Amino acid sequence: MSSRETGRQPKYQRIAAELRAAVEAGRYGPGDRLPGENDLMAEHGVARMTARQALGVLQAEGIAEARKGAGVFVRDFRPIRRRGIERLARTQWAEGRSIWSADIGDRELAVDSVEVTEEPAPAAVAAVMGLGEGASACVRRRRFVLDGKPVLLSTSYLPADIVAGTPIAQPETGPGGTYARLAELGHGPVRFREEIRSRMPSREEAERLALPAGVPVVLIARTAFDAEGLVVEVNEMVLDSSVYVLEYDFEA
Amino acid sequence: MSSRETGRQPKYQRIAAELRAAVEAGRYGPGDRLPGENDLMAEHGVARMTARQALGVLQAEGIAEARKGAGVFVRDFRPIRRRGIERLARTQWAEGRSIWSADIGDRELAVDSVEVTEEPAPAAVAAVMGLGEGASACVRRRRFVLDGKPVLLSTSYLPADIVAGTPIAQPETGPGGTYARLAELGHGPVRFREEIRSRMPSREEAERLALPAGVPVVLIARTAFDAEGLVVEVNEMVLDSSVYVLEYDFEA
Repeated sequence: MSSRETGRQPKYQRIAAELRAAVEAGRYGPGDRLPGENDLMAEHGVARMTARQALGVLQAEGIAEARKGAGVFVRDFRPIRRRGIERLARTQWAEGRSIWSADIGDRELAVDSVEVTEEPAPAAVAAVMGLGEGASACVRRRRFVLDGKPVLLSTSYLPADIVAGTPIAQPETGPGGTYARLAELGHGPVRFREEIRSRMPSREEAERLALPAGVPVVLIARTAFDAEGLVVEVNEMVLDSSVYVLEYDFEA
Repeated sequence: MSSRETGRQPKYQRIAAELRAAVEAGRYGPGDRLPGENDLMAEHGVARMTARQALGVLQAEGIAEARKGAGVFVRDFRPIRRRGIERLARTQWAEGRSIWSADIGDRELAVDSVEVTEEPAPAAVAAVMGLGEGASACVRRRRFVLDGKPVLLSTSYLPADIVAGTPIAQPETGPGGTYARLAELGHGPVRFREEIRSRMPSREEAERLALPAGVPVVLIARTAFDAEGLVVEVNEMVLDSSVYVLEYDFEA
């Protein structure tokens, strides 16, 4: 925000800008409590509603979050770094040079629910998979948690005519997971496409991911192709945007 | 939403779910007007506030948008497909083509503002670029519009000691753009890293991208490396999430 705009700003925006600058400068770190409504009223000589609006701006921007009865805190952004292209990401040239320093380190994603069904794929998925109308897909729905917090909903569609009766149609797919089983069936993925969007969550997504207000979701639609060009999986993922950084490394 | 949850839902959520299902089934297409408050009141026997809340849910989810005095319409999502990998392939810029031309087929992204300065890079950018404290970067700030609508804010940082006095420090960089000029200076990019996040926009971003309420932004931080592993550009992009699909294709 350039200084020449300051005069035109409503008071609550000026206070919000000041708090934002303090967070960006590190004066309030992740997890720190921001000044409360009473503090802001006293310091800036404003009404409670103005102080509340200022804190609301930071929450809407995802910089801070309210904790019931405790105040408003700087969001603790310890992102999960999801590397789309492992093969390239591992090379030395990119090591340790990240805009958003991030490290999942010893923290581990765990699956806390698995549901496997056979059902007709949604029209958009069926079209990508080349399934006829009403044709069945094996559908694997999983939720992933990190430190007990749900972070990812994954719905994986696989062609029923390939995977029915195999471990892929069971909750536990065995060592190496679905892709290892697909390889054993002669349909190992050799090429991937990932499509990424973002939007506000539906009410159900917000509940299942335990999202605070003002946090969007990132959508990844991943399509896996085997050596013949057959689509062997479409995986629709819904991610808590406040904990994920997606990374893609590639050559010119 | 499974049917067994329906009984616990507030009425406005049930109406919202019905409208959402109708949009997903294509009964209301992009740009179509949804039933208004009066229609919903009559059809469902609910109060105006309930009808308004139901329509509010779809707007918060980014499915629909209100147009003043005209009603609530299904958002016209004609996404810009941004291909991360193919887009940056050397043949594109090495032959004098803009790297953006791969984005959108027959629709054209245009730059509607360019500002070039020399200033100290922010700390996170300076760290990635290996710049000492207070060292200068050439900063190119651009806004891109599609059909008159701003869709992308781009802030590109380049090492001042390489680009000062070259066309890169001018608003117009010439055929092939910044990357072609870097190549002529012996620092053509050969590898890229893209890091992707999403969050709600700041007030300034919402204004500059003319975002309706409830639309998040996608952030892309792109780092370009030359053949020696030197970081020759960091580009921080802010995208209107409602118009972009990012695509990455890669091999297993």
